[in-house]
Amino acid sequence: MRIAVIGLGRMGSNIVRRLMRDGHEVIAFARRPEVVQAMVEEGAIAATSLEDAAAQFEGQRIFWIMLPAGEPTESTVAALAAVSAPGDIIIDGGNSFYKDDIRRSNSCILKGLHYIDVGTSGGVWGLERGFCMMIGGETAAVDRIDPIFATLAPGYGAVPCTKGRAGADSRPARGYIHAGPAGAGHFVKMIHNGIEYGLMQAYAEGFDILKGKASEKLPEEERFALNLADVAEVWRRGSVVSSWLLDLIAIALVEDHSLAKYTGEVSDSGEGRWTIDAAMEEAVPADVLSAALFARFRSRVHNTYGDKLLSAMRYGFGGHVEVPQ
Amino acid sequence: MRIAVIGLGRMGSNIVRRLMRDGHEVIAFARRPEVVQAMVEEGAIAATSLEDAAAQFEGQRIFWIMLPAGEPTESTVAALAAVSAPGDIIIDGGNSFYKDDIRRSNSCILKGLHYIDVGTSGGVWGLERGFCMMIGGETAAVDRIDPIFATLAPGYGAVPCTKGRAGADSRPARGYIHAGPAGAGHFVKMIHNGIEYGLMQAYAEGFDILKGKASEKLPEEERFALNLADVAEVWRRGSVVSSWLLDLIAIALVEDHSLAKYTGEVSDSGEGRWTIDAAMEEAVPADVLSAALFARFRSRVHNTYGDKLLSAMRYGFGGHVEVPQ
Amino acid sequence: MRIAVIGLGRMGSNIVRRLMRDGHEVIAFARRPEVVQAMVEEGAIAATSLEDAAAQFEGQRIFWIMLPAGEPTESTVAALAAVSAPGDIIIDGGNSFYKDDIRRSNSCILKGLHYIDVGTSGGVWGLERGFCMMIGGETAAVDRIDPIFATLAPGYGAVPCTKGRAGADSRPARGYIHAGPAGAGHFVKMIHNGIEYGLMQAYAEGFDILKGKASEKLPEEERFALNLADVAEVWRRGSVVSSWLLDLIAIALVEDHSLAKYTGEVSDSGEGRWTIDAAMEEAVPADVLSAALFARFRSRVHNTYGDKLLSAMRYGFGGHVEVPQ
Amino acid sequence: MRIAVIGLGRMGSNIVRRLMRDGHEVIAFARRPEVVQAMVEEGAIAATSLEDAAAQFEGQRIFWIMLPAGEPTESTVAALAAVSAPGDIIIDGGNSFYKDDIRRSNSCILKGLHYIDVGTSGGVWGLERGFCMMIGGETAAVDRIDPIFATLAPGYGAVPCTKGRAGADSRPARGYIHAGPAGAGHFVKMIHNGIEYGLMQAYAEGFDILKGKASEKLPEEERFALNLADVAEVWRRGSVVSSWLLDLIAIALVEDHSLAKYTGEVSDSGEGRWTIDAAMEEAVPADVLSAALFARFRSRVHNTYGDKLLSAMRYGFGGHVEVPQ
Repeated sequence: MRIAVIGLGRMGSNIVRRLMRDGHEVIAFARRPEVVQAMVEEGAIAATSLEDAAAQFEGQRIFWIMLPAGEPTESTVAALAAVSAPGDIIIDGGNSFYKDDIRRSNSCILKGLHYIDVGTSGGVWGLERGFCMMIGGETAAVDRIDPIFATLAPGYGAVPCTKGRAGADSRPARGYIHAGPAGAGHFVKMIHNGIEYGLMQAYAEGFDILKGKASEKLPEEERFALNLADVAEVWRRGSVVSSWLLDLIAIALVEDHSLAKYTGEVSDSGEGRWTIDAAMEEAVPADVLSAALFARFRSRVHNTYGDKLLSAMRYGFGGHVEVPQ
Repeated sequence: MRIAVIGLGRMGSNIVRRLMRDGHEVIAFARRPEVVQAMVEEGAIAATSLEDAAAQFEGQRIFWIMLPAGEPTESTVAALAAVSAPGDIIIDGGNSFYKDDIRRSNSCILKGLHYIDVGTSGGVWGLERGFCMMIGGETAAVDRIDPIFATLAPGYGAVPCTKGRAGADSRPARGYIHAGPAGAGHFVKMIHNGIEYGLMQAYAEGFDILKGKASEKLPEEERFALNLADVAEVWRRGSVVSSWLLDLIAIALVEDHSLAKYTGEVSDSGEGRWTIDAAMEEAVPADVLSAALFARFRSRVHNTYGDKLLSAMRYGFGGHVEVPQ
Repeated sequence: MRIAVIGLGRMGSNIVRRLMRDGHEVIAFARRPEVVQAMVEEGAIAATSLEDAAAQFEGQRIFWIMLPAGEPTESTVAALAAVSAPGDIIIDGGNSFYKDDIRRSNSCILKGLHYIDVGTSGGVWGLERGFCMMIGGETAAVDRIDPIFATLAPGYGAVPCTKGRAGADSRPARGYIHAGPAGAGHFVKMIHNGIEYGLMQAYAEGFDILKGKASEKLPEEERFALNLADVAEVWRRGSVVSSWLLDLIAIALVEDHSLAKYTGEVSDSGEGRWTIDAAMEEAVPADVLSAALFARFRSRVHNTYGDKLLSAMRYGFGGHVEVPQ
Repeated sequence: MRIAVIGLGRMGSNIVRRLMRDGHEVIAFARRPEVVQAMVEEGAIAATSLEDAAAQFEGQRIFWIMLPAGEPTESTVAALAAVSAPGDIIIDGGNSFYKDDIRRSNSCILKGLHYIDVGTSGGVWGLERGFCMMIGGETAAVDRIDPIFATLAPGYGAVPCTKGRAGADSRPARGYIHAGPAGAGHFVKMIHNGIEYGLMQAYAEGFDILKGKASEKLPEEERFALNLADVAEVWRRGSVVSSWLLDLIAIALVEDHSLAKYTGEVSDSGEGRWTIDAAMEEAVPADVLSAALFARFRSRVHNTYGDKLLSAMRYGFGGHVEVPQ
């Protein structure tokens, strides 16, 4: 199929490449011409503007936006809607908030356009492994561009399908789902990232305790200098905690078990916060997911005002003076 | 009554003073003679050793140990047991682990001695306000030294007794309880401190959010430069969150609302950890009390290994590079 | 001063009473005429509609809305704005979300009206103790109706002013603050409630562990049947955890220490959730405040789907079958 | 090699089978003769007592204990030590607390015996997939019985070795590690289980929020009836949260997405609690791991006393009455 990809960052350019490898025709656009040119050298068709991208379709257009959530995506959806005709499909493959999708979809429908939200997981590994996609939008539109999703997804690959799925929708086993109406794709992706934070923090705390077991503050007999790279490697085999994240931990630790090149100031994106919002809207307890998010906040601060207030109270009631650690 | 106080730190010396003010005869002992001498100048009877302290009683002895938990208290209990005679009473007024009390009490009983554990709250304010005491041990022994507890406790004072307590034990309304057998006193004090951590952290987080509301990262219209000293003061009057800890916050903030003299590296003592142990033994969820404890641990570390591992995973799956904050 | 109070529920009617006691003239309105009539019998002036309330002022009007947050307050603000004239003051004394205040204030200012948001703490005790008020809005308007706030607030009363406040704004010591521009009042009240949740949960967990210490699953020697009413009473005196909430716990426990009349299904209002939202917007960790909120969510569910999923995983990897508790 | 396996439950019998398949001679003992007989029919050598098991060795003996932690394992170690001779090896393959291992090892060493602790992961899948083993003990003894570990472990199998491990110890890549001295094996296994709890709870909360998104309390447009079996399946492919636990979730959900056969009362074993103890000893924050543990505690209680206390406080300050949910 012919499709225009708007936004050629790490994710966008890999999406272009994986589409072209499977025979799709890709129109590539980004604000910086040299970025477009790089894709053209790999086989893409250049677009010099959104209008130009729209002009290079015969019949119904398909746009895949791969831009940061918020203003860049918002304004691009609006601009594409302005150059589109009824029946055209606008896909947001980024990390938008799902309520924005609902609003944009309603607005597109009024113009006869179709809006599809795609939560895309796979990161830098997606080109080779394929992208895991969670899709929201009208069924007819989602089905129309199925060849695009089929190409981008991992396919059956090495992961055997869960027994008992015979007769079920085959798309999940090939790496993509049509989760529901507008917003459902990004909602599922959002929860995916919320879980991701929780999983990561569980490993982080566990390895922190393993590392701390060598501390000289512990009784000598209870002190263990564990080889953490070996621990990660062995857990990858036959243990309950094996996972792709653990594979990545094993890679990082074999390179440098002290992780000296990282400061440990950990960013968070919107999804982790929106997951907690969703939990609050549904009144579902989310202790682990919120603790994982807060650990990231805390990682970026040296001394919190709250901690100082604790010290001040301790001084107030007990005359306790802070002891340098 | 005549009583020997062993350990003349901030708490111990105030206990000596409050006892003497009310007419008790206090034998004072500490390892450093100048500390003993200071108490003698205030009216205490000097002891040069534990044996000497024991020798200065006629009839049944009463020892009040006010030393750090762990080895100092443990060895002093043993040494006092060695110079005591059946019927004597050994009181541990410090912060011992309640299971140590149970063990020591069993050991004392075999020798005809009585062991009483007293959890003592009041800090630097205890001399004036009186000490809130939670007492464990045999009833006869606890009753025998009631005059000591009555003196040290705040008494009815300014806090009106809860309605409906007419006819109930009057001791709680005077500031001390006989909580149960050996260990019960320190157990109740331990939970008291666990709650204290939770209360403190609730205020700390709330004031942290109030402080952060002035951040330039927020939209200008939603930015408030709040006067935190005023907030603390107003909440002391008619609000649901009024408390003695809030009084202390108001004092600290009126002095310097930036709390600049504190680094925010917050110590924790055994009680907070033992509270979590007790929760685990009883299978009672204690999310707030444990979060409060962990916040103190975290306050003393600049970069955790766990955080670095998060950064390493993020680099691994997404090529994310840490952004300086 | 003359003031109209809209909404005569528990809080609204007590506000009317406290205002009248101090000589203010109060126009009372509520949807149900019998409720208005009851206030009239206590001395208020009846209003039969918002228009009627507006008509009973000479000169600048003052409206105090005391209605549930959300639609009831929103529509009433709009309706009052429609019957007001430049210079009039509309006060929202309920529990609105502070961003709604900012929006409403902007809208009022365009019409020459003044909008004031007042976070009001005090509950059923406010009539006697006075209401603790956190106020947002334009300084001139807030100052104009200072006599109203002075009347409703607790005043200096029994709580001594924090030392060092000499020369500072006297309003906090009398129980109200002008926290900042529109929204600031409800923002401070919101954090107040967030802290309240955290404090309450800290006590709840502590008393849960105290209660559980009598469990027959524990070794006999480590089992204590504690008198929780006595524990609450003693902590009110000279201990670090004394607070008004603890006073309430003491009242509840002296009545029935088993708390049999409560099921423990605990509601939460918007403030607790908005506090977590604010923490996320500021990237401030709020582990205790969120855990307290989630405990309330959890209290209202018998079996979560998440728990069932844990059981399913345990069965999957270990063949573990659930054991009836 | 010849080895005696003591304890023939699910794990023990699979260990016997996997050892025999690879040519080892296994002496099997359990308290119930019919259980021993079942193993004999599969090729094992029967032992009628620990003494009998010991008698069936020529030269140095090897005992593998596979019993519940606590008293059963403790008494068996003692009994085996009594029938052993210098140079014999006693292995505890169960879930003992690592400090018990240190104590037992010291005691064995005094008798010339060798004690090895093995944390064994693999559950009901171990017979086919192999067991992931974390080993603690003296190097010479661990090396002596390497053929046993090599047989039980998964081997290189389908999981490719992490790049960069060329030249490193090959055992982790074959599924077992010698983690350190006595206790180190069970310590690493303990943290493994602590992480396991955290990972499981992250998934549980995420799926709980996905499930709750169909709630009729949400605005209709924001309500999604998600196919959770499909969500689990798609995340297994190319997503960051893919893991063995997710594979198990997919299996459970394809069978019955309502999970109706589970009540959600989730057990916990010692490891989760000991992990929190270890975190406290090292002063490492473990918010996620503790929240995961507490969620299990909470799953087994219908109404906590703490929740009732919250209701009582709310009634006390606001006259709030519980609303049936």
